[in-house]
Amino acid sequence: MRLAVISVHGCPVRQIGLGSAGGMNVFLLESMKIMSKFGVKVDLFTRYHDDNDPDIINITENARVIHLKIGKNELSQEKIYDLLPDFVQEIKNFTENNNLTYDLLSTHYWLSGLVGNILKKDWDINHVSMFHTLSLLKQKEFPTMLHSIERKKSEFKIVKESDRILVWSEHEKKSLLEYYDAKSSAIKIVSPGINSDLFHPEIREQKKIKKDVLKIIYVGRLEPLKGLVTIIKSLSELNDLDISANIFGGDVVIGETQRLINLSSDLGVTDKINFHGPVIRELLPDLYRKHDLLVMPSFYESFGLSILEAQSSGLPVIASNVGGISTIVKDNVTGYLISPPNNYLLFSKKIRLLANDVSLRMKFGINARNHAKLFDWNLVGKDLVYAHKFMSRKHLL
Amino acid sequence: MRLAVISVHGCPVRQIGLGSAGGMNVFLLESMKIMSKFGVKVDLFTRYHDDNDPDIINITENARVIHLKIGKNELSQEKIYDLLPDFVQEIKNFTENNNLTYDLLSTHYWLSGLVGNILKKDWDINHVSMFHTLSLLKQKEFPTMLHSIERKKSEFKIVKESDRILVWSEHEKKSLLEYYDAKSSAIKIVSPGINSDLFHPEIREQKKIKKDVLKIIYVGRLEPLKGLVTIIKSLSELNDLDISANIFGGDVVIGETQRLINLSSDLGVTDKINFHGPVIRELLPDLYRKHDLLVMPSFYESFGLSILEAQSSGLPVIASNVGGISTIVKDNVTGYLISPPNNYLLFSKKIRLLANDVSLRMKFGINARNHAKLFDWNLVGKDLVYAHKFMSRKHLL
Repeated sequence: MRLAVISVHGCPVRQIGLGSAGGMNVFLLESMKIMSKFGVKVDLFTRYHDDNDPDIINITENARVIHLKIGKNELSQEKIYDLLPDFVQEIKNFTENNNLTYDLLSTHYWLSGLVGNILKKDWDINHVSMFHTLSLLKQKEFPTMLHSIERKKSEFKIVKESDRILVWSEHEKKSLLEYYDAKSSAIKIVSPGINSDLFHPEIREQKKIKKDVLKIIYVGRLEPLKGLVTIIKSLSELNDLDISANIFGGDVVIGETQRLINLSSDLGVTDKINFHGPVIRELLPDLYRKHDLLVMPSFYESFGLSILEAQSSGLPVIASNVGGISTIVKDNVTGYLISPPNNYLLFSKKIRLLANDVSLRMKFGINARNHAKLFDWNLVGKDLVYAHKFMSRKHLL
Repeated sequence: MRLAVISVHGCPVRQIGLGSAGGMNVFLLESMKIMSKFGVKVDLFTRYHDDNDPDIINITENARVIHLKIGKNELSQEKIYDLLPDFVQEIKNFTENNNLTYDLLSTHYWLSGLVGNILKKDWDINHVSMFHTLSLLKQKEFPTMLHSIERKKSEFKIVKESDRILVWSEHEKKSLLEYYDAKSSAIKIVSPGINSDLFHPEIREQKKIKKDVLKIIYVGRLEPLKGLVTIIKSLSELNDLDISANIFGGDVVIGETQRLINLSSDLGVTDKINFHGPVIRELLPDLYRKHDLLVMPSFYESFGLSILEAQSSGLPVIASNVGGISTIVKDNVTGYLISPPNNYLLFSKKIRLLANDVSLRMKFGINARNHAKLFDWNLVGKDLVYAHKFMSRKHLL
């Protein structure tokens, strides 16, 4: 089976730091690898970013990234939207010049979905789309956030014309049915995976767990939607304990880090919280292991890859009960789910509980690791492959 | 100790495929990691490539890459040369705005060396330079290659003004003394390292080694200097054996792959050689293990990182005896050194020998692995750190 993947907006081989790339980029790279391992031949089309970028980069023997020379450095979504016709044309040029045909089309994010709407007709194959985030969901959870009217209209168009829509959680499925008028039969839930060998817990004897001492980690891009204000407010409630928070990730909204630093100063917790900026992914497994707890107070989260990584590393998680998070955090088993997301008093109460109770923290950590193992790519990858194979041309013949 | 590293031309976090990046990019990233592990705080200054690139990316807790917004997409060396004054100014702005001072300056490649010449005076610290390649050496081994007059003049200027020059091999040291009028006392040989846990041999029982069957691998960028013509000619001498060659890496000179494919066709060996294009580095450890022999017929090579990686993976190597290669390939011990580099008859003779003699191949493979282990970063990293610390301001005080 030959699969064409379109990702106009995010390139899997440019996954260099958390500042410019989030879970989608990681998902693209890792899903290409696992699908290729299960025998699917994958070509992913994206934009090139630099004159020296190779046209084609091999990811595995069966999977490759194809860089198309379109609109370099024009990265705002509006500008990419205007370039979509060029994108369609360049993909067609490439496939025609190389005599390529595909059995199925998979697209990621709304911009690519529009490209998929056109190509599925030209190629007469099915189109499987993934949104990763949906504008109406983000807006519902965070009403001050505005999305372009093109995005909303396009999402409806993609929902209507896709042969299948893959989502990461029951929550996303329900939202597509409720707000986007999707057909239930078109939607399939697949879970993103994790490398549980890479994200493994520290050997228990080596990690000294102390009562009343807690190192909190947050990993993700910095934007208001992520609710980091809640972490800062929680810390100000915990002045009597030896608690610190390390924040890894870069600004999405310009100046967000500075805004958070200012708030930390206003609330008198600058000595308890550190903003480290973007880190290369290679560093993450060790970083998780050096901490005791992940806190994720997002207003919306379609899945929350860092929650899964932290749990796989043996960390309990305290997170808002929004979006797809309840798929991965089991309340009172692997950590705590908090609602509403901005309830900083409840966050601080649960943090205090885990700071005080070392055995509970350890129990949650072990549960978290065991739960996260169920999301290993070698397990969930099969579902992903099957969800694609079922829709392929060869299957329908 | 705080070290400022300048790399105008190559960014360590953009090491995505072999098409646009070579050993220098890998060296920069890995040397930052190991120096930080040994307690050196490292800031590397380079250019940004994309509006969405984070300004700063943390590589480890002590090492970071700082992207300066200079001349995006203007990647030819001539254009970068014109931008060097901007580069100096942006580095000074950054360090002044952030109240940073450094104990030592380390620069890579001639373009960065020029920046170092200026900054060492302004900052009143020592300047340690590394050239990685030198124009006169490349030109000597491959006379048709022309370098700009600016490059040659600049190299002399950097040699003259550097407080220390780090080189990778005795050969490079001799060349600096002979052609560049360097002072012997200013030059120190340090070896690049390798992660020998990552590049490890396949368990012997699992790898079926057959007589008269040989899978050759080449890993590196494709340009005439790499001498791939020699591999193709050698294959045409070995038609009676079951030998194949897999070439990984992308064009540096436009159309080089096509030129090599055409030659393979002319010599009737298209069924024996495959050009796979650039691959992500993650794929390399497995790729080496799937082959029996690395062939590296370069006309010049300052070090040859892929030789080290292959040897660490338990592969014997047949390589030209040029540049720094004799530092890593031990003739008749870990493989064979051939001279002159274009002696394809001798290359084919040695390939035949290893194809026929399984026990020799295995012996060389074991020797290669043991030899490569001496280059593990945990060993050679200490030398690198010491070579820098010795030159730092703090040391001299």
